[in-house]
Amino acid sequence: MNDMPSDSGYVPPKVWTWEKPSGGHFASINRPIAGPTHEKALPVGKHPFQLYSLATPNGVKVTVMFEELLAAGHTGAEYDAWLIRIGDGDQFGSGFVDINPNSKIPALMDRSGPEPVRVFESGSILVHLAEKFGAFLPASGPARTEVLNWLFWQMGSAPYLGGGFGHFYAYAPVKIEYAIDRFTMETKRQLDVLNRNLADRRFMAGDEISIADFAIWPWYGQLALGRQYGAGEFLDVETYEHVQRWAKEIDARPAVKRGRMVNRTFGEPSEQLHERHDASDFETKTQDKLEG
Amino acid sequence: MNDMPSDSGYVPPKVWTWEKPSGGHFASINRPIAGPTHEKALPVGKHPFQLYSLATPNGVKVTVMFEELLAAGHTGAEYDAWLIRIGDGDQFGSGFVDINPNSKIPALMDRSGPEPVRVFESGSILVHLAEKFGAFLPASGPARTEVLNWLFWQMGSAPYLGGGFGHFYAYAPVKIEYAIDRFTMETKRQLDVLNRNLADRRFMAGDEISIADFAIWPWYGQLALGRQYGAGEFLDVETYEHVQRWAKEIDARPAVKRGRMVNRTFGEPSEQLHERHDASDFETKTQDKLEG
Repeated sequence: MNDMPSDSGYVPPKVWTWEKPSGGHFASINRPIAGPTHEKALPVGKHPFQLYSLATPNGVKVTVMFEELLAAGHTGAEYDAWLIRIGDGDQFGSGFVDINPNSKIPALMDRSGPEPVRVFESGSILVHLAEKFGAFLPASGPARTEVLNWLFWQMGSAPYLGGGFGHFYAYAPVKIEYAIDRFTMETKRQLDVLNRNLADRRFMAGDEISIADFAIWPWYGQLALGRQYGAGEFLDVETYEHVQRWAKEIDARPAVKRGRMVNRTFGEPSEQLHERHDASDFETKTQDKLEG
Repeated sequence: MNDMPSDSGYVPPKVWTWEKPSGGHFASINRPIAGPTHEKALPVGKHPFQLYSLATPNGVKVTVMFEELLAAGHTGAEYDAWLIRIGDGDQFGSGFVDINPNSKIPALMDRSGPEPVRVFESGSILVHLAEKFGAFLPASGPARTEVLNWLFWQMGSAPYLGGGFGHFYAYAPVKIEYAIDRFTMETKRQLDVLNRNLADRRFMAGDEISIADFAIWPWYGQLALGRQYGAGEFLDVETYEHVQRWAKEIDARPAVKRGRMVNRTFGEPSEQLHERHDASDFETKTQDKLEG
């Protein structure tokens, strides 16, 4: 079908070549090739877990998980969180690529065992930590399956929200009606999927909070709270009443508040903890806020 | 930024409303709301596993998994595969939505235990079956983590290939250069990520085939073999030499050949097994082919 001229007048070439930046926010960090662009070792702190991340929704999933594990008494979940500035290309440094060959945050090095283990993709990190500590994911049975159903739902769905809706609504250099309509429709459908599920459940997979909530809330919970892409009114997020109730309940959890602050480089300075190396780091920030 | 007119002349409204089909292939099945559109119970066969699916890449992941389990001697993995015609809206029937509230194939009902367990999202189905049979996913340790890293990589990456590149290159009613460029660049980057990983590994997570391969091959392996979107030349897939080697090795596996046939409604009639209820169903098809 590609030799048929379209309304736009654009006919794709026989072979695509990388001729120009495609433009828009984040254009400078998008490339058609993988691998490192420069040699750079990563810092290593004192804790068993070394996290290299940024407080995007995918990053927040993992810092919320660590803070929830610590709040639940899993003292082995102490972590150093190092800032990866994706706008500066930190994710293309050789040390980072060794952990995550996909050059995306978050990336984790688990140094709690005899050999360091690399863990990449936020969903994989959540499962890895949940299994290590026996927390927020049942070990077996239907309850485990239901948590994983929703965790994988998030992984397969959020690209339509972030890489689709968010990009074309907020970041692309030109407003393309077809693309905005396409991804808006899908985003609203996804919000409705969540709303129906939460109509008779407290949390995504049942009565207990789980890694499914930690994965879904940073994207769809924060979207419902009007924090993503300035799109709350456009998506009419207030109409998803069960998502609203759930989003607010999770938002109020102290561990979630802490998790949101880690590796954060935007918003109020008092809410930005660029690196996290100790539980007391949050107290310092709280003190700043009280004195600020 | 949305009150600033863009080059396109399109300014998004304050609140999006569903006014018209967005057009293009699959337009009729895209909606901004979830839930069932009609009452319809699903058929149930004799085997422990009831699969409701279609031979898209996400469907093929699961039928390959079942066929590989059976080939490896896991006789408990017998399954009935029922056809879900997404163009006809079968995924919006009440019985299907009860299994997968997201109305996407594949959906699985595991009837091997005391209570039926619903499993949705292809990644979740792969993990569920792998853990049930202790196959294609190590039970613990770094090898398990590496398989899950790549499994989650697939879940988070393929929407850019299927919902992004495939849609704008092959299915959208108009060729939008910006969108095609954006998703082509990302698709080629993903192919390069795989190519680099496979440069010194036989399979995605190491020396052993795993659910990571079963997840990635139907999308990226078949893309590399020129079977997706007629885009082989456009993406210059031949240049990803390690992906080529891996894609061909997996393509040659008898269980993969069988898995590709199940719930298939396109291509050669002799390769279409609309429903699968018994191992002998494939033999009948082979006989058709020899006689055809």
